[in-house]
Amino acid sequence: MKKYDKLVVNAIGRTVPTVINGEPATPFMGLRKYRPSGRKYAPQIPTCIDYPDDGNKVVDSLAEALQRCGLKNGMTISTHHHLRDGDLVSNVIFDIAHEMGIKDLVWFPSASFPCNEPLIKYLEDGTINRIEGSMNGPLGRFTSGGGMKGCAVLRSHGGRVQAIQDGEVKIDIAVIAAPTADPFGNATGTMGSSACGILGYSWADMLYADKVIVVTDNLVPFPCMPFQIQGNYVDFVVVVDKIGIPEKIVSGTTQVTKSPDRLLLAEWTARFCAEAGLLKDGVGIQTGAGGTSLSVGLHFHEQLKANHWKARFGFGGSTQYMVKMLEDGVLDYLLDAQAFDLEAVRSVRENINHIDLSVFQAYNYHSKGNYTSMTDIVILGATEVDVNFNANVVTHSDGALLHGIGGFQNCLFSKCTILPIPLFRDRIPVIIDNVTTVCGPGELVDVIVTERGIAINPLRTDLIEKMKFSSLPIKTISELKAEADAICGIPQKAEFDDEIVAVIKWVDGTVIDAVKKLKN
Amino acid sequence: MKKYDKLVVNAIGRTVPTVINGEPATPFMGLRKYRPSGRKYAPQIPTCIDYPDDGNKVVDSLAEALQRCGLKNGMTISTHHHLRDGDLVSNVIFDIAHEMGIKDLVWFPSASFPCNEPLIKYLEDGTINRIEGSMNGPLGRFTSGGGMKGCAVLRSHGGRVQAIQDGEVKIDIAVIAAPTADPFGNATGTMGSSACGILGYSWADMLYADKVIVVTDNLVPFPCMPFQIQGNYVDFVVVVDKIGIPEKIVSGTTQVTKSPDRLLLAEWTARFCAEAGLLKDGVGIQTGAGGTSLSVGLHFHEQLKANHWKARFGFGGSTQYMVKMLEDGVLDYLLDAQAFDLEAVRSVRENINHIDLSVFQAYNYHSKGNYTSMTDIVILGATEVDVNFNANVVTHSDGALLHGIGGFQNCLFSKCTILPIPLFRDRIPVIIDNVTTVCGPGELVDVIVTERGIAINPLRTDLIEKMKFSSLPIKTISELKAEADAICGIPQKAEFDDEIVAVIKWVDGTVIDAVKKLKN
Repeated sequence: MKKYDKLVVNAIGRTVPTVINGEPATPFMGLRKYRPSGRKYAPQIPTCIDYPDDGNKVVDSLAEALQRCGLKNGMTISTHHHLRDGDLVSNVIFDIAHEMGIKDLVWFPSASFPCNEPLIKYLEDGTINRIEGSMNGPLGRFTSGGGMKGCAVLRSHGGRVQAIQDGEVKIDIAVIAAPTADPFGNATGTMGSSACGILGYSWADMLYADKVIVVTDNLVPFPCMPFQIQGNYVDFVVVVDKIGIPEKIVSGTTQVTKSPDRLLLAEWTARFCAEAGLLKDGVGIQTGAGGTSLSVGLHFHEQLKANHWKARFGFGGSTQYMVKMLEDGVLDYLLDAQAFDLEAVRSVRENINHIDLSVFQAYNYHSKGNYTSMTDIVILGATEVDVNFNANVVTHSDGALLHGIGGFQNCLFSKCTILPIPLFRDRIPVIIDNVTTVCGPGELVDVIVTERGIAINPLRTDLIEKMKFSSLPIKTISELKAEADAICGIPQKAEFDDEIVAVIKWVDGTVIDAVKKLKN
Repeated sequence: MKKYDKLVVNAIGRTVPTVINGEPATPFMGLRKYRPSGRKYAPQIPTCIDYPDDGNKVVDSLAEALQRCGLKNGMTISTHHHLRDGDLVSNVIFDIAHEMGIKDLVWFPSASFPCNEPLIKYLEDGTINRIEGSMNGPLGRFTSGGGMKGCAVLRSHGGRVQAIQDGEVKIDIAVIAAPTADPFGNATGTMGSSACGILGYSWADMLYADKVIVVTDNLVPFPCMPFQIQGNYVDFVVVVDKIGIPEKIVSGTTQVTKSPDRLLLAEWTARFCAEAGLLKDGVGIQTGAGGTSLSVGLHFHEQLKANHWKARFGFGGSTQYMVKMLEDGVLDYLLDAQAFDLEAVRSVRENINHIDLSVFQAYNYHSKGNYTSMTDIVILGATEVDVNFNANVVTHSDGALLHGIGGFQNCLFSKCTILPIPLFRDRIPVIIDNVTTVCGPGELVDVIVTERGIAINPLRTDLIEKMKFSSLPIKTISELKAEADAICGIPQKAEFDDEIVAVIKWVDGTVIDAVKKLKN
């Protein structure tokens, strides 16, 4: 099977394949253009006849569970990333598959982490054909080097559930690592020594996978309540010693940036939101969990409190800072798909207004609306932005795939998307003529905040008008680029081969860009 | 279209059609025999393009919402029964349809109530072709009289979600009356002047219906949290003055029976459970909300407390008595699909261990297991039981359809199903040679408790052994029948025409029995 075939130029000017890993793909057609036809994916109808009356689905080992699920060549295996860099389950699946002599698997994680580096040997020996999911760190570099047999497919969190729902990716076996579970397969992330707070990224896998395995290190008597995973979708339960390394799953506490430059970005971002009237009573916000974003969140907290305002909702990934907003009465609801620190785990377990949200609700574009377009302010990052406001989050300036898309593409649909980013990193400009990889079309990026000035997208005449008399340094994006170039000079460009190693999907399942193999 | 066609005798000896309302149907094949083939029903893939970015799906009226959903002849319209006899929404749907001149609709409620009597005129004039759902009171009598144009189809609560999931019933428009909702369609039953506690019976409709309308009398700003209905499945939101009559939705307090006979049944039932060792630490129970069942529950509460035992889970419909068990520490989790009184509504809103469960989890037979077979003790009622322990819950001794199946068929899969029933009602014996309508196969009915004695199903040699030296009056079912006959004489039988007016589905979608038209 060819990795890809039949290249065309899509609506944003990028050359992309229309056949990927043997399956037809639609090139990006522009915003709000592609209409899905057809019906959602429909799994096989099961029957209680095939499951034990006593509800005990525990089998002796993950190997046995995988065998009884009919693991075979070419299957797609999904996992979640709630255990982050402390995940002790995902790699073991492929150790077992390798042991069984299985080939050509597709790994479909909701994200990968440096701890998944051991999988490189299975990508090399053909146990795994490809990864469809975010590639962070070593796996990204391996992919950029052309080591993967199949073509990698990167999707946003929303795009992942869209692909599952629409049957674009058919999950043969979902393996759900669960900090607490019962023998029937009900499970939760709020309890147990490997508690990660939430299992929201597995909800889609649970609903649509052909077979579902729950792996836990904390088996409790039926029923494991309140449930985050429903046992009536689960085939087998496996009990192991340890599903994760607690301190690598959630941090003790998330930390605000201490860098003076980043603190300036955060301050200007917050001032921009205040002056433009974006921050107000009843606001809906997503600030993210990066160091700069956390600092923006602290400013928001202060401003809300000072004005006796209350934010209506804040989107997680949740941190101690968002929990503090909730408990301090400046936030009505914390809507959450993952918990980043111990305070967030405690909160989701105890606070009825800290809501375990599914990705379908928050981010799915093939849905009857989602929450992103109702969110007033979204703070995101980017590795590169170009003069047309197109943004890249997956490749670095050296051309290597090093990040996943996460919720980036989904959140762009907010009422105001702001990217606080440094003007350059290691003397490499961040604002350039053309981003290496388009992840987000410029039409959806509203404001760029750098330490040398703030650029508003010319499409947002309303924001430009509002900031006309601001004391903040409002500039054009070309002015910012010129400043960066003057400081850094024009940097050497990354050099690529013609071969495509990965494609980037847009939120509607179309192909927005392709990533090429790095030279050398 | 013929109402039904091609009669056969099924595995339990009943004559049933194999074509119903023009669609093929499978006759009951015996317990655990019918295996579904094929895939779950798959709704059309929607896209955010077709829904407002600001999330405001409110339209002016239910009529407008129905029109924009494309209401037309022959469609299937679903509703839930959480507003019970206080429902002010269901009838209005068909007033509007009638006004629009629409014909041949199928009404697919999760249950009907006496308040739905006004729909008889639409069954007569052809606005509604048939009801697929429980028929309580006037609608049942109308159906038994042969007034319905189509053939009625009765399903258990679990059978209803099985039929939706499997695509046996395709819902064109689901109308979800919601005590509180936001403009996006997120909704909950826990708040508002028409609070009913839970909206669990609508979950399946929400997931699988082509179009979904939420009707509320309490619109709150986005997001309505914690949600029970997810707005990302909702097409339109309608705001009306009143969706229900509060005192008919939930009672102020549910009441235990005061009848000395019923109190005796309850006492013997509880003693039976104690002596047979069924009630124990960690037990799972479902007692139901009828007067006798509530009294059984009180006995359980006392016994658990006296023994320092704790029930692991109790199934709702929930009442003040189950809430008291939860709050009194003799029950770990209250798993609930509907709330019957104000205390239950308060509890589900406030208590994290009072769990809003979907019917899929609890009852669906076409699932990877469900909760019924893990439940130790289930207390149910019946209108008739025969000497083979077959039970009837839908027709009265006069042959008229007067009740729905509810969760009856589903709960039969418990480890021990007990029916506390009077030996006769109005001098008509309840234990007879052949039930008018088979709803539950005798193999699944374990114990019959009457005021003249207790009969254990001969299949349950374990229970017979355990009760060998009991002081309770253990008898055979034939002995009980003989006693009833001696007191009542042999009653006149209801007389039927040959015409079938309704069919009874088993939990796996097969046809277990048919109900014939009453003579006169």
